Amino acid sequence: MFENNSMFETDYNYNEAKIIIFGAPFDSTTSFRPGTRFASKTMRSESYGLEYYSPAQDFDLIDVPFFDAGDLILPLGDSKKTLNIIEDYVSQVMADEKFPLMIGGEHLLTLAPVSVAQKKYGDIALIHFDAHADLRDEYLGVKLSHASVVRRISEVLNSDSIFQFGIRSGDKKEFEFAKENTHLQKFNFDGLDDVIKKIKDRHVYFTLDLDVLDPSIFPGTGTPEPCGVNFLDLMNASFKIFDNCNVVGFDMMELSPPYDPSGISTAVALKLLREFLIRINKKFISEKSF
Amino acid sequence: MFENNSMFETDYNYNEAKIIIFGAPFDSTTSFRPGTRFASKTMRSESYGLEYYSPAQDFDLIDVPFFDAGDLILPLGDSKKTLNIIEDYVSQVMADEKFPLMIGGEHLLTLAPVSVAQKKYGDIALIHFDAHADLRDEYLGVKLSHASVVRRISEVLNSDSIFQFGIRSGDKKEFEFAKENTHLQKFNFDGLDDVIKKIKDRHVYFTLDLDVLDPSIFPGTGTPEPCGVNFLDLMNASFKIFDNCNVVGFDMMELSPPYDPSGISTAVALKLLREFLIRINKKFISEKSF
Amino acid sequence: MFENNSMFETDYNYNEAKIIIFGAPFDSTTSFRPGTRFASKTMRSESYGLEYYSPAQDFDLIDVPFFDAGDLILPLGDSKKTLNIIEDYVSQVMADEKFPLMIGGEHLLTLAPVSVAQKKYGDIALIHFDAHADLRDEYLGVKLSHASVVRRISEVLNSDSIFQFGIRSGDKKEFEFAKENTHLQKFNFDGLDDVIKKIKDRHVYFTLDLDVLDPSIFPGTGTPEPCGVNFLDLMNASFKIFDNCNVVGFDMMELSPPYDPSGISTAVALKLLREFLIRINKKFISEKSF
Amino acid sequence: MFENNSMFETDYNYNEAKIIIFGAPFDSTTSFRPGTRFASKTMRSESYGLEYYSPAQDFDLIDVPFFDAGDLILPLGDSKKTLNIIEDYVSQVMADEKFPLMIGGEHLLTLAPVSVAQKKYGDIALIHFDAHADLRDEYLGVKLSHASVVRRISEVLNSDSIFQFGIRSGDKKEFEFAKENTHLQKFNFDGLDDVIKKIKDRHVYFTLDLDVLDPSIFPGTGTPEPCGVNFLDLMNASFKIFDNCNVVGFDMMELSPPYDPSGISTAVALKLLREFLIRINKKFISEKSF
Amino acid sequence: MFENNSMFETDYNYNEAKIIIFGAPFDSTTSFRPGTRFASKTMRSESYGLEYYSPAQDFDLIDVPFFDAGDLILPLGDSKKTLNIIEDYVSQVMADEKFPLMIGGEHLLTLAPVSVAQKKYGDIALIHFDAHADLRDEYLGVKLSHASVVRRISEVLNSDSIFQFGIRSGDKKEFEFAKENTHLQKFNFDGLDDVIKKIKDRHVYFTLDLDVLDPSIFPGTGTPEPCGVNFLDLMNASFKIFDNCNVVGFDMMELSPPYDPSGISTAVALKLLREFLIRINKKFISEKSF
Amino acid sequence: MFENNSMFETDYNYNEAKIIIFGAPFDSTTSFRPGTRFASKTMRSESYGLEYYSPAQDFDLIDVPFFDAGDLILPLGDSKKTLNIIEDYVSQVMADEKFPLMIGGEHLLTLAPVSVAQKKYGDIALIHFDAHADLRDEYLGVKLSHASVVRRISEVLNSDSIFQFGIRSGDKKEFEFAKENTHLQKFNFDGLDDVIKKIKDRHVYFTLDLDVLDPSIFPGTGTPEPCGVNFLDLMNASFKIFDNCNVVGFDMMELSPPYDPSGISTAVALKLLREFLIRINKKFISEKSF
Repeated sequence: MFENNSMFETDYNYNEAKIIIFGAPFDSTTSFRPGTRFASKTMRSESYGLEYYSPAQDFDLIDVPFFDAGDLILPLGDSKKTLNIIEDYVSQVMADEKFPLMIGGEHLLTLAPVSVAQKKYGDIALIHFDAHADLRDEYLGVKLSHASVVRRISEVLNSDSIFQFGIRSGDKKEFEFAKENTHLQKFNFDGLDDVIKKIKDRHVYFTLDLDVLDPSIFPGTGTPEPCGVNFLDLMNASFKIFDNCNVVGFDMMELSPPYDPSGISTAVALKLLREFLIRINKKFISEKSF
Repeated sequence: MFENNSMFETDYNYNEAKIIIFGAPFDSTTSFRPGTRFASKTMRSESYGLEYYSPAQDFDLIDVPFFDAGDLILPLGDSKKTLNIIEDYVSQVMADEKFPLMIGGEHLLTLAPVSVAQKKYGDIALIHFDAHADLRDEYLGVKLSHASVVRRISEVLNSDSIFQFGIRSGDKKEFEFAKENTHLQKFNFDGLDDVIKKIKDRHVYFTLDLDVLDPSIFPGTGTPEPCGVNFLDLMNASFKIFDNCNVVGFDMMELSPPYDPSGISTAVALKLLREFLIRINKKFISEKSF
Repeated sequence: MFENNSMFETDYNYNEAKIIIFGAPFDSTTSFRPGTRFASKTMRSESYGLEYYSPAQDFDLIDVPFFDAGDLILPLGDSKKTLNIIEDYVSQVMADEKFPLMIGGEHLLTLAPVSVAQKKYGDIALIHFDAHADLRDEYLGVKLSHASVVRRISEVLNSDSIFQFGIRSGDKKEFEFAKENTHLQKFNFDGLDDVIKKIKDRHVYFTLDLDVLDPSIFPGTGTPEPCGVNFLDLMNASFKIFDNCNVVGFDMMELSPPYDPSGISTAVALKLLREFLIRINKKFISEKSF
Repeated sequence: MFENNSMFETDYNYNEAKIIIFGAPFDSTTSFRPGTRFASKTMRSESYGLEYYSPAQDFDLIDVPFFDAGDLILPLGDSKKTLNIIEDYVSQVMADEKFPLMIGGEHLLTLAPVSVAQKKYGDIALIHFDAHADLRDEYLGVKLSHASVVRRISEVLNSDSIFQFGIRSGDKKEFEFAKENTHLQKFNFDGLDDVIKKIKDRHVYFTLDLDVLDPSIFPGTGTPEPCGVNFLDLMNASFKIFDNCNVVGFDMMELSPPYDPSGISTAVALKLLREFLIRINKKFISEKSF
Repeated sequence: MFENNSMFETDYNYNEAKIIIFGAPFDSTTSFRPGTRFASKTMRSESYGLEYYSPAQDFDLIDVPFFDAGDLILPLGDSKKTLNIIEDYVSQVMADEKFPLMIGGEHLLTLAPVSVAQKKYGDIALIHFDAHADLRDEYLGVKLSHASVVRRISEVLNSDSIFQFGIRSGDKKEFEFAKENTHLQKFNFDGLDDVIKKIKDRHVYFTLDLDVLDPSIFPGTGTPEPCGVNFLDLMNASFKIFDNCNVVGFDMMELSPPYDPSGISTAVALKLLREFLIRINKKFISEKSF
Repeated sequence: MFENNSMFETDYNYNEAKIIIFGAPFDSTTSFRPGTRFASKTMRSESYGLEYYSPAQDFDLIDVPFFDAGDLILPLGDSKKTLNIIEDYVSQVMADEKFPLMIGGEHLLTLAPVSVAQKKYGDIALIHFDAHADLRDEYLGVKLSHASVVRRISEVLNSDSIFQFGIRSGDKKEFEFAKENTHLQKFNFDGLDDVIKKIKDRHVYFTLDLDVLDPSIFPGTGTPEPCGVNFLDLMNASFKIFDNCNVVGFDMMELSPPYDPSGISTAVALKLLREFLIRINKKFISEKSF
C-alpha cells in the first residue's frame, strides 16, 4: 500500500543479499562545485522511473538479491572520521563475505573500501575509470583530497597495482607520477583486455568515477571534462571487468544532482547500476559462491 | 506589425491546408515527472528561433500549406473525456481528407487518432518509435495509462499491425507480450526496410515518442532512458516511412519542457517537425492528392 | 550508523504513535502547474535541515509520538481509485483511534479523509484555509477536480458545516454559492474566534491549502495568488483551532517543490508541521486521551 | 474547443474594446540582466492560471471590453526604430479614442507612448512609480537607455510635469536633477493625494515599473532593489490615480520572467493587470465616455 | 576602457583604505546545502547592478575608502588550515589598524577574526545576529562546525561577552547553554539598546548571519528558517551597533547564491554592504581616527 | 594568498604576452535568447575548474605567455559605439604585433576585429565555423545584427575571401547569396584542407561560433541548432587552421551561460580555449616571431 523507497524498491534484507549497496553522502573536499552528497538519495528516489528488467541482458533485477543499507551518517568537514566510518562498515560487509557497492559522494571516499580490501586480501589491484588522474600529492596542502585519492591509494597498495583508463585531465606532475607508478591509459579503454589478463589471479577493486563519461551524456558532476567516453563503451568495458576479474568491491562516484536539472545523469547512473547489479550477480551464480 | 504566434508563424488557414497541426496538452497519467502538457505551447513560442528553410531538403516551410489549430481544451484528470475530445477533432480532420499531426502531451493520447484512423480505414498498421514498449496491461490498476497505450491500441487494431522500433525499456511481461503480438525491434531501426515493404499496401499511422532519442540529445522528457538513437538516424528512418508508406496520421509525443532548461529538446522537436512537414508535403505533391 | 529518512527522522512506530502522517502524491487534476506529487518526499528529505526543538513552544518534537507511514501508492490519472485508497487508509487510522495527518498532493484528495470522518462522526465541520474557494461545480466537465473539492465536500457534509478563511480567488459563481452554502471569510482570518465558538461541540476536520500564504513566503505552489496571509497569522490561527476545537483530522496540501528552487516553501511547510505536531500532541496530553 | 491564448482569453476585438493591450518585447539597453522581452508572452500564457473575477472589486473581467493586440515586432538592437514602431501604434490607438496599455519590455519604451500623448494633448503629466529614478543624462554614452527614460521624457514634457514615487535608487546626480526638475518622493507613495489634486485638470500618463515592489514580492526583474513597497500599497495608490486622474495611457514595465522561476512575479503582474483593467473600465462607465 | 571587477568597482588600494573587504570561500562543514563558497564572487560580479549612492544616507560609496582584497585561497575540506589562513590575514589587517570586513562562506569562519581580535584587544564582545544559535558542542563529532561556531567562540572570549539576537532555531541544549552563557534574544532585536549601553566601553566584533532575515527576503542561504526579521529592522539594528559601539571587525556570512536563482538575496547582501560601508566610514570620520 | 581571477589565473602582463584575450560582453541584437554578455565572466570564474596542462598536446598553459585584459566596457543597446570600442582596442593590440583573441558576446562583434585586420593587412581571408550562415542583408531592418555579420564582413573584405564551414541553418536567400559570394560548406568541415591550401599565402582571421557544435555538447547558446559537429572534429579542424594558416586574429562567440545550468558548455569553451592557446603559441615558437 505504501511506496518502498530503497534503491530500485529492493525488498531483500542484509542476510538474504550478496551485494550490499550503501550511500556515502560526503563532498567536503570538492574543490570546484559541491553536490555529490545528494547522489545516493536522488538515485533512490528516481530509481522509481526505471524498469527493473534489462532488455540487454534479458534478466530482471527482482531476481538479484541485493540489499540497500541506506546512507551512512558522515561528518561533513571531517574527512578522516568519514573514511573511518566507511571502513568500519565495509569491513563488516566483507567479513560477512558480501560484495560492497558504494554510491558516492566524492572520489576521496574510495580510499576507505580499497584500504579494507587490501587488509583482507593483501594483493588488491585497482581498476580506475575516470576523466581525472587523481594523483596529486596534495591539493592546497590537503592530503585527503578528491584530487589525491589514487595517490593515497598508491601508498596503500603494493606496486604495480593501479590501472587507470579514460584519463584526460591532470596536471603535468600527475602524468609524470603515472609513468613511474601506475598503468595510465589516456582518453579510452584501449589495453583493458591485456590488463585483465595480467591481473586475472588477483583480487580486484573497481572504482568508477562517472565523469569518465562525456559531459553531454553525464552533465551532472562537479568537474565536467569534455571529450569523454560514451555509454556503451563504458558499459561494455565494465562488463569485461565484472566477467573476467575477481572483483571484490565496486563504487560509482561523483554524480552531482544539483548540476543535472534534466535528470539524465541520474538516469545514466541508475541504468549502469541496474546492469552492473545483474552482471555481478551472474558472476556469483556462475561461481556458485562469492 | 504584430507577431504571429502560430507554429512557425504559419499563415495558412484550415481550408487551404493539407496538414493540420494541433496540440494536446495532457499529462495526467504520467507516472514519473509531469510536464508534457507544456510541449505544444513551448514549441510554438520557440519556433520563432528556427529558420523556415531546410538546407537538408532545400525547401522552404513557407511553401508547405499547413494549419496550426492551436491547443485543444482538455480536462486534466479525466483520460476518457480527453480521448473523446481528440477523437472528435481528428474525425473531423480526417473527414475533410486532411492529415492530422498531433503534438503531445503524454503518449496515452495516441490511442485517439489511431482509433479514428482504424474506424475510417479498417486496416491501420502502426509504426511506433519509442524507448519504451508501452505494452503493460495496466499501470497501478489504470488501463488508460501512458505505459499501456500500445497495448490498448493492440486491442483496437487487427493482429499483425504493430511495428515497434528503438525499444530499450519495459518490464519482462511486455517483451513477452511483444513476442506474441507485435514486431518489436530493440535499440534501433534495424529491419525497418522490410517492415515498410510488408505494409506498403496498408494505411499507416506513425507515432513518434521523442524519448527514442538519446537523452544527451533530448533531455526534456518525463522518463529519460539512456543509450538511445541519434538525431540523423531518427530523421532518416522517419523519412523512409513518410516516403514509402501511406501515412494517414502522425504524432510527436512526450516533449516535457520543464526538464529542458537549455531548450535543446524543444529545438530538436521543432527541427524534426520542420523536416517532417516538408517531407509529408512532398508526398502530397508527388501524389497530387492525399 | 545509517540515516533515518522518515519525516523529522521519527522513530515511533504505528502502535506507539497517536498521530499518523502519510503522504498522498497525486496531482493529476491540477489545471495549471503540476508538481505537488513531490511534496511529501521533498519534505521528508529536507526535514533533516530543521531542528526538532521549537523555541516558540519550548518543546521538542522528539517527545511527540508520531508515525510516518510513508507515501501511499496512488494511480496517477485515476482520481476515483486514488480517493478510495486514501479512504481505506484513513478509515483504518481512525478505527485505531489515531489522528490522520495527510501531506498532499492536490487539494482534491481532502475529499477522502473528510468523507471518512463524516461517516465515523456524523457531524463534521470543515475549517478550510485557502487562497481559492474550490467551490466550482465542475472544471471542464470534471467533477472530481482540485477546483471543486469543497463543493464535493459540501455534498457530503450536513449544511452549515463549511468555514472558509483567507479566500481571495474564485469565479463569480463560487462566491455566490458560498453566500448560500458556506461561511466564507475573504482575505484573512477575521471571525475565526466566533466560528470556533460556534462549532466547539462538533468534530472538526481542518484542511490547510498552503497557498493561503502570500507567494513571497510560499512561492512553491501550483497556483500562486498574490496578497496572502503571513506566516505568523497562519500559525496563530491554526493554533487556535488545534487548541479549541475537537479536531479529528488535518491535512497540508498543495506544496509543489518544482516551483520552489530555493526551498523556502518546503522549509515553511516543515516548520508549520513541526509546530502543529507539537500543538496537536499537547491537546492529547491535556485531554489524556484522543 | 481550442484554447484562446490572448491575455485573460479576452474575446473582444479592437472595435468593441476601449482598452487596447499590446506587448513590447524589447530589452536591448538593459544594462544588468536581460529578459523583459519575454514578459508579455509569459503573462499571456500564465493568465490562464488566474480567475477573471475580482473578489476585491466584485467585478468580472469578462465584462470589461479590452482587446489584446499581441506583441509588436520590434528590431532588437535598434532603440530608435523600436520607439518609432511603438509611437505609430499608440498614435493609431489614441486616434481611435482608445486607451493604450503597454506591457514592457524595458522602461525605455515608455518614451514612445508619452511622446504620442504629449503631441495629442499638449499638457501631459507623468506619474512614475519605480525603484529607480531613471534620470541619467546618458548611460555609457547612450542617450536612449532604460536608465535615462524619465530624463528623456523630461525633455518632451512641459516643466512641472513629472511626479515620481517609490524611488530608492539612482546616482547622486539623478537626485540632484530631480530636486530641480521633478517631484520625487523617495521610498513610498507619501504625498500622492496632493499630487493628484494638483494635476486633476491635466491629462495623465501613468507608468509603472514593477520593480517598485519589494523583491520578495516581485523577484522577477532585471535590477532587483531591496526594501520596496508591498502589493496592497501599490494597488491602492494605483487605484487612486485611475479613479481621480484623467489617465490617457498606462504601462507596466520590467517584468523579467527568466529571473522568476517560481512564477510569482508574473502572477503579481497579472493580478495587478486584472484589477487595473476593471478599475480603468469603471472610470469609463462612470464617465459614459472616454 | 575595461571593467573593474572588484566589489562595487572600488579603486582604492590597501594603503589608502581604512576598511578591508575580503572573501572567504569555504563551506565544507555545511550540513545541509553547500554553496556559500560562491558568495563573495557572486556579490562582486552583481555589485555592478547596484548604484554606489545611498538615497537613505545621502552619501556616495565612491567617497568611502575601502579596499577589496579578493578571495583568500582556502583548502576545502580542512577547517583548521582554513581558519589559520584567515587568522593570518586578519592579524595583518588589524596590525595595520584597519577594519577587516569578511564576506563568508559558512559561519564557522567567524571564529578566526574573533580570535584575532580577542588576542589584540583582550576584551571582545560579540554581537551575533542569526536565525540559529550555533551553540552546539559538536555536530556529528565535529567540533569545528558551522553549527558550533558561537560555542567555540565562547571558549575564546571572556564570560559575559556574547550577545545573540534574532535566534529562532537550535536544539534544546543550545538554548539551555545560552541561558547560562550568553545573552540570547529570540526572534528579534528587542533589548539591543540595553546591550549597546552595557558594552559601550568594550571592543566589539559584529557577526551577521544573513539568514536572520526572513526567507522571503533572503531565500539564498543553506538553511532557510521561516519567520525572520525584515530588511529595515536589520539595517536599523545594525546602524545602531556601528554608530554606538566600538566595532573593530565585521562579517556577513551564509549567502548561498546557488539557492537564489532570482538574485534577490545577493541584491540584499550588496545593499546592506553598501549601507554598512558608508556607516562604518562615517564613524571613522566622526572619530577622525580608527 | 588571494585568488587570481584572470582567465586560467594567468600572471603574464600585456608586455610579456603574445596573445591578448579580452571579453566583449554585448548581446543587444540577439533575436532569440540573450545571455552571451555573461560568457567571458563565466569562463573566467569557471577556468579554475580546468587543469592548465593538456594531455593531448603534452604542454602546460603556464608556459604560454598570454594576457587577460578583462572585459571591455560596452554600451548595451548601441551596436555602432560598441563596434568602435572593440576596433580601437584591437587596433592597439595589432599595432603592438600581438594576437587578439576575443571572447564574445554575440557574433555581430566579429565585424570589428575583421575590419581592423583588413585595414592592417589588406587581404584578410575569413574562416567561419558556425551553425548559421549569418548572411542576411538585414534583420527586421537592422543592418548591424548578429544574423548579418558575415554579410557585413563580405562588404569589408575583398571578394573570394569568406570560407564558411558547418553551416546548417539560414533562410533561402542566405544560401543563394553564399553560392555567389562565399565558399559555404554545409554541415561539416569537408574541403577544409583545400581551402587552407588556397589561402596559405594570405592573412587569415578565424571566427568560431561555438554553436557549430551539436547542442548535446554545447547547449548553452542563444540559438541551438540540432545535428552539429562533435568536439574532436571541431578541435582538429581548428588545429589545422592554426597550424597551417597565417592566422592574425581569432574569436570564440555565442556562449550563453544562462542556458547552460550544468556548466558543460562553459567547460567545452574553456577546454577549446586552453588547447587553442597552446596551439597558437606553438606556431609562434616555430616561427620565432609573430
